Amino acid sequence: MKRIGMLTSGGDCQGLNAALRGVAKALYNRLGDKVEVYGIEDGYRGLIEGDYRRMKPEDFSGILTLGGTILGTSRRPFKQMRVIGEDGVDKVERMKDNYRKMKLDCLVVLGGNGTHKTANLLSQEGLNVVSLPKTIDNDLWGTDVTFGFQSAVEIAANVLDNIHTTATSHGRVFIVEIMGHKVGWLTLHAGIAGGADVILLPEIPYDADRVAEALQRRSREGKRFSILAVAEGALSKAEAQMTKKERKLSRAQMAYPSIAYRLAQEIGEKTGQEIRVAVPGHFQRGGSPCAYDRTLSTRFGTAAARLIAEENYGNMVAVQNNEVVAVPLSEVAGKLKSVPVDCGAVLCARDLGICMGD
Amino acid sequence: MKRIGMLTSGGDCQGLNAALRGVAKALYNRLGDKVEVYGIEDGYRGLIEGDYRRMKPEDFSGILTLGGTILGTSRRPFKQMRVIGEDGVDKVERMKDNYRKMKLDCLVVLGGNGTHKTANLLSQEGLNVVSLPKTIDNDLWGTDVTFGFQSAVEIAANVLDNIHTTATSHGRVFIVEIMGHKVGWLTLHAGIAGGADVILLPEIPYDADRVAEALQRRSREGKRFSILAVAEGALSKAEAQMTKKERKLSRAQMAYPSIAYRLAQEIGEKTGQEIRVAVPGHFQRGGSPCAYDRTLSTRFGTAAARLIAEENYGNMVAVQNNEVVAVPLSEVAGKLKSVPVDCGAVLCARDLGICMGD
Amino acid sequence: MKRIGMLTSGGDCQGLNAALRGVAKALYNRLGDKVEVYGIEDGYRGLIEGDYRRMKPEDFSGILTLGGTILGTSRRPFKQMRVIGEDGVDKVERMKDNYRKMKLDCLVVLGGNGTHKTANLLSQEGLNVVSLPKTIDNDLWGTDVTFGFQSAVEIAANVLDNIHTTATSHGRVFIVEIMGHKVGWLTLHAGIAGGADVILLPEIPYDADRVAEALQRRSREGKRFSILAVAEGALSKAEAQMTKKERKLSRAQMAYPSIAYRLAQEIGEKTGQEIRVAVPGHFQRGGSPCAYDRTLSTRFGTAAARLIAEENYGNMVAVQNNEVVAVPLSEVAGKLKSVPVDCGAVLCARDLGICMGD
Amino acid sequence: MKRIGMLTSGGDCQGLNAALRGVAKALYNRLGDKVEVYGIEDGYRGLIEGDYRRMKPEDFSGILTLGGTILGTSRRPFKQMRVIGEDGVDKVERMKDNYRKMKLDCLVVLGGNGTHKTANLLSQEGLNVVSLPKTIDNDLWGTDVTFGFQSAVEIAANVLDNIHTTATSHGRVFIVEIMGHKVGWLTLHAGIAGGADVILLPEIPYDADRVAEALQRRSREGKRFSILAVAEGALSKAEAQMTKKERKLSRAQMAYPSIAYRLAQEIGEKTGQEIRVAVPGHFQRGGSPCAYDRTLSTRFGTAAARLIAEENYGNMVAVQNNEVVAVPLSEVAGKLKSVPVDCGAVLCARDLGICMGD
Repeated sequence: MKRIGMLTSGGDCQGLNAALRGVAKALYNRLGDKVEVYGIEDGYRGLIEGDYRRMKPEDFSGILTLGGTILGTSRRPFKQMRVIGEDGVDKVERMKDNYRKMKLDCLVVLGGNGTHKTANLLSQEGLNVVSLPKTIDNDLWGTDVTFGFQSAVEIAANVLDNIHTTATSHGRVFIVEIMGHKVGWLTLHAGIAGGADVILLPEIPYDADRVAEALQRRSREGKRFSILAVAEGALSKAEAQMTKKERKLSRAQMAYPSIAYRLAQEIGEKTGQEIRVAVPGHFQRGGSPCAYDRTLSTRFGTAAARLIAEENYGNMVAVQNNEVVAVPLSEVAGKLKSVPVDCGAVLCARDLGICMGD
Repeated sequence: MKRIGMLTSGGDCQGLNAALRGVAKALYNRLGDKVEVYGIEDGYRGLIEGDYRRMKPEDFSGILTLGGTILGTSRRPFKQMRVIGEDGVDKVERMKDNYRKMKLDCLVVLGGNGTHKTANLLSQEGLNVVSLPKTIDNDLWGTDVTFGFQSAVEIAANVLDNIHTTATSHGRVFIVEIMGHKVGWLTLHAGIAGGADVILLPEIPYDADRVAEALQRRSREGKRFSILAVAEGALSKAEAQMTKKERKLSRAQMAYPSIAYRLAQEIGEKTGQEIRVAVPGHFQRGGSPCAYDRTLSTRFGTAAARLIAEENYGNMVAVQNNEVVAVPLSEVAGKLKSVPVDCGAVLCARDLGICMGD
Repeated sequence: MKRIGMLTSGGDCQGLNAALRGVAKALYNRLGDKVEVYGIEDGYRGLIEGDYRRMKPEDFSGILTLGGTILGTSRRPFKQMRVIGEDGVDKVERMKDNYRKMKLDCLVVLGGNGTHKTANLLSQEGLNVVSLPKTIDNDLWGTDVTFGFQSAVEIAANVLDNIHTTATSHGRVFIVEIMGHKVGWLTLHAGIAGGADVILLPEIPYDADRVAEALQRRSREGKRFSILAVAEGALSKAEAQMTKKERKLSRAQMAYPSIAYRLAQEIGEKTGQEIRVAVPGHFQRGGSPCAYDRTLSTRFGTAAARLIAEENYGNMVAVQNNEVVAVPLSEVAGKLKSVPVDCGAVLCARDLGICMGD
Repeated sequence: MKRIGMLTSGGDCQGLNAALRGVAKALYNRLGDKVEVYGIEDGYRGLIEGDYRRMKPEDFSGILTLGGTILGTSRRPFKQMRVIGEDGVDKVERMKDNYRKMKLDCLVVLGGNGTHKTANLLSQEGLNVVSLPKTIDNDLWGTDVTFGFQSAVEIAANVLDNIHTTATSHGRVFIVEIMGHKVGWLTLHAGIAGGADVILLPEIPYDADRVAEALQRRSREGKRFSILAVAEGALSKAEAQMTKKERKLSRAQMAYPSIAYRLAQEIGEKTGQEIRVAVPGHFQRGGSPCAYDRTLSTRFGTAAARLIAEENYGNMVAVQNNEVVAVPLSEVAGKLKSVPVDCGAVLCARDLGICMGD
């Protein structure tokens, strides 16, 4: 008998349920009565507090297209590793205890960068861990793509599309603020797919004067409108020189709710144009996964089940050059996959004449 | 020979091209070679400046699903009526002149409230005018529904849907700011369709304490999340007592980009909950019209063509009790159709236990 | 204490779960602990066989956008009324028995025409019944619109849209077969919204020669493609003269799977054009309801809860002239709401020059 | 001055306009006034007949999301290569003549397998050719993925989704016939994404008894419904043994419009279950490309422009291991990329317990 615990951790995204279903269906199909699956609630919180439930095969029916996660999730159950809980007991020890009490053979973890740090730690502490790379940010090291990413691209591109029709009809300038945390993958792909005229990424700090020039050049060429796709993590060149602390202070003084509003003010002053803002926010990470992500999540899920059957632990399933592979957790943890400034998609954007802010 | 000019004015919305196509296809089908259609550019600006082009039947092919307007549009070509232009000539006189120079038999105007004031004025000045009720706000007097409205409801409800999956997975509070100008139709319908827990409309001024109570009651009942659908024109009870000028001043002092951010701060302080904001903005008014709006726009368009054939001028086409009818422009102009506070949809929301803020 | 049973019967459609949620949420909100809701499985089958379960408020959470029905459904549990079951007991008596055993105060029934015949019968037999009008066919007497209809229109119009892009690129003729049972509402509305060139409805028997002429006229006018939206229940003029039995025999001899294939053959021979067929089938009645249907279903649901609270039984909730009203079941049962051949939407189609086959 | 001709050939698909825009925008951006772009109408037909037009930069505005192709397309302008036209002149010679008359520096060809045979021939005849891999079938050798494919997957998966909700509500068996010509890529990916229970591909000939068994096993396990995703090119084991001619004859005798209807009959008889059919047809290849395809098409387009600038002719742009590369036309032409029967996605399907028919 194999006993498998599963948890989803960090910000939710599309495809979590599809991935859980993939793991579970493949386990049941492979092992039949010889496997028991446990759902751990709200990410690592449930493992710390021993909050879990026995799942049945039918719990995984009908969830392939369902947004969110049926297990719940939580962010940052511990701000620092190894911090002692309120009752004086170390949280990692609690997780190890509960893993043992649950008599798990393997813990399956679905999450992003923060989640993988903990997954690697638990693996080093001797737990059997298999993980799946989940995030709309696509910033996980070791995999070409994470699930959730493409669904978010579809949504953000659709926002750009709709704003396009208004922009062309009215001759206006719009800023759309796109998620992605500290990296620009989502903004870059959605920006190209959505026909943005300016794309600003954290990896390429922007110069507001260059952006203003690009808008003015478009006006001179008779183009009545412009659309800026701006990553939530975009930085000005000045900010890129600051320490993290200085940057935080600098932003607090300006009191804009987010980068889009600041840019609208800044570029608006430089160009004399009225600039409108859309901040679709968490809209980008919710709802049903696109078919691409459903297939990807399902493939990751069945691959995880195979690793479990082979007792090949301590790995994240990943896709590299179109193949699903296993990558050691120790290689993944603590790294960030940023957009290379000379990658194909950036070159494509430059070839189209899109202003990248630099 | 009939010569017909068409223009689209005010904020763009879904269905403008479908309506233009409906007018044109029905005119060509009915009158064949005996009709000429002229597209006037960028709304009344084009009529003031004599900026127009002869349209051909094929110009209206393939635009049924196209967002925006092929004619372009502009807002507020004159802030006040009868204002004298820079060259000393009255703008209304210029429009009358150009109407005559173009030898139009009828001017077809697609627009919202501002547009209809001007349409009525031009009609009173002796021009033959037929209009179509366009706006995502659904605030035009004399028609049960305007085109664009349902498409915007579909989009705003979809935003609420997606945020739902994140909210349930994380146990969070979200505010989604929904368009609608001074009225709450869009927020009310999208809020019900999107399963919002709190719906705040301009027509029902809110008390932030009641909203905070509603959120806390949900927490006590074990509901981990709440979603607030807030109209961009929503007012607090205090604001509802102010003059327009006082309100403007009061808001300027607070310096929030829009109501959602203010509410997030206000309710966040009262409840101690972290509140996230989504402002989809112009995303709601762009893109392809939903099928409902395509049928409605097309029906309005063919009805306008029939009014023109019958030389029945000075009317807006409208839908009343499922029938397409003609309503005199003089009855439409200058009125605002707000949400009645005891209408069926508000009662429905209250029946569901949705907090309306009062 | 009020005990309410709910069942969904007949072909499923979008909005069933939204409507169930509306009834339940409004009952719980209004009556709190003083109401118990029972879900009866698979339509009348569950009532005949005593197959039901106690529902909890959380059973109705998260189902607003869910396609299908959480209660299951079945078609034709009895081909004729009052038929004796295998065990020698009358099925209607069994339903009455189970209603009494369950100690129901009211039975809430969601269904179409067949369902309403039974609902009326049960009401006449003394049960307290409230019903909701569900069907993508929009053929229920007494209500301007049924839920499910608009969602199906959106889907069918989207099929037409996509086929449009292929048709225009290639210069081809396509037939899209659209659902709707014996009436043409869905085909008419989707046909207008999807820009069909020919629309064939059961209410307007077609002459294949006229259809062929329309296609040839389009070719002569240089239009490279044509799209036919054909109701699954469309009839040729010859068929319209036949008895139901003759028609069935005539069709059996031809051995086409459905009308689209027959028309493709018939029109193809007359015009010499190759004609392609798409039969999206049940795709049209599944998936998430559009926002329009979610609001409508919810309004119907809360209205049903109000009727129950007022003990106003024997009615179907309906919408008439934008108001939600109650219509006696006896007025609804056994009637079919066909498309009036001179209704506004048909006139609109004719105004556009769409060939209606006559 | 560079003169570039572009044509789209073969069945249309999503992303053609996005790709044309990518080529053109990158050429104009790179070469400015030093490039002229010519649109050749309806594929090779336009090149044979000298039917083309000078394009302007604005012709490529607003087409990123547009389905179909603004240049038109045609299938099989010559059934065999080198066939002599009606006027006694060889069609290939005519194309070469027109290429010279147009003074083209390069011919850009967007198409699938048939198109690439001709592209390679023209390249061997001395024309400068650059091609882009377009097809929903994903069957082009030399590229990991073609544009159009993912958009079609999204649509076909969506059809499966909607049918799922009906199938679960009613407990029914459905067959959805999915495009893909002679290969199973589309059915395989859509089938996994859409949660199909049976997936039948041309590459894995099916045994109807095994399919019937799978359905009956599901019934025994209490699963009320089953969904079969069947490739239009699926073959029974018996058919796989036949010559192409025998197969054609065998199918003609059975007189089913397509495979889905035949399977419905065959499996229906074996299982005693009523089986319903959906044939979405060309719906799958029309409409707006998904964001994935828009980015991919745009990247292919800009890469083609770079090849032209570098005068690197005789290649197809392709994606291999996430990199956009150039593949010699001679390596692409005449090959078919089938689904390897042991590829990751097939293994994934088997891991889930999906019946593959063998």
